[in-house]
Amino acid sequence: MKVLEERIRKEGLILSDTVLKVDSFLNHQVDTGLALQTGREFKEVFGHLPVTKILTVEASGIQFAMAAGIAFSVPFIYAKKKKAVTLSEDVYSAPVHSFTRGEDYQISISQKYLGPEDKVLIVDDFLATGAALVGLADIVEQSGAQLLGVGCVIEKSFQEGRSLLEKRGIAVHALARISSMAPGEVHFIANEELIKESAGC
Amino acid sequence: MKVLEERIRKEGLILSDTVLKVDSFLNHQVDTGLALQTGREFKEVFGHLPVTKILTVEASGIQFAMAAGIAFSVPFIYAKKKKAVTLSEDVYSAPVHSFTRGEDYQISISQKYLGPEDKVLIVDDFLATGAALVGLADIVEQSGAQLLGVGCVIEKSFQEGRSLLEKRGIAVHALARISSMAPGEVHFIANEELIKESAGC
Repeated sequence: MKVLEERIRKEGLILSDTVLKVDSFLNHQVDTGLALQTGREFKEVFGHLPVTKILTVEASGIQFAMAAGIAFSVPFIYAKKKKAVTLSEDVYSAPVHSFTRGEDYQISISQKYLGPEDKVLIVDDFLATGAALVGLADIVEQSGAQLLGVGCVIEKSFQEGRSLLEKRGIAVHALARISSMAPGEVHFIANEELIKESAGC
Repeated sequence: MKVLEERIRKEGLILSDTVLKVDSFLNHQVDTGLALQTGREFKEVFGHLPVTKILTVEASGIQFAMAAGIAFSVPFIYAKKKKAVTLSEDVYSAPVHSFTRGEDYQISISQKYLGPEDKVLIVDDFLATGAALVGLADIVEQSGAQLLGVGCVIEKSFQEGRSLLEKRGIAVHALARISSMAPGEVHFIANEELIKESAGC
């Protein structure tokens, strides 16, 4: 997604070779039009699949799940992050380790909103270590729903997230794929072809 | 907003005379079409005002701020919730007491994204005690921006949030105003007229 790569070049704040801040237009202040456009892009890629629900995790996935929900005309669910989930709650949950914050938390969704009849597209802002996305994939598995793919806005391709997901047979698409970065410079991978043939798992 | 009142009647889970859960369609699983419609409703009410930014707080305000951002064609900002804000950060912040969780936290936004040139509409899912919304209003004040109004999806009119805001001269509009509720029943206040005349402060 060229316009996204341009915005990252212009407005992204690269603090180190792993830390990129995009909070002027994606995940603190949000360019509403650009967010909407990410939804249309995900529709381009996954639109041939019978998606019934979009799944993301709070908070910074919500605007992109909303955009995808609009493009697909389906509801979205955002998993909650908590320090701990009590066993009494009727939730699907998965542990996630945040490398950024050096802490563990649980993500969970109510069992009421996902079941074997659902076909799910997971959407999030970043794909890096893949920790949160693998947790979301676990939740889909627990629910018995079918996972049709993962769509991310920005991928740090030099981290292991994509390979963790692809090893599980999950189709992954990222709108901007960063191959390397350092303060003052960022390099992108030319995006893959539409993954219509391989999507679905 | 009739369709919203109907959904609350049908799908809202009233756990006590103060606790209403709407997580099947508003703030866990989200009916994308309904969320979009809330944005159009806020545009109906506040659309004559020169709004430059929508402001909300993570996480459950995001989908409604996004909807309002779409309707107004402006960016939105979501304040972050933290236990504590370090003084070194260049943020506007305000303390908030959560009555639901019995804890205090800070909400904050980067100083980069709000300034005296901005005209702000605050949007959130619930107006009850008003704690988070008063905090957001404080943040707007710190930034020197002009606060044009507050739009909420659901108001618990039997709590003091609205009067706290109106005392400060802030125009408030809620799409569904609950006058009272108890398990199995909910009563709404017929909504006010469009507040075009009084909006702006």
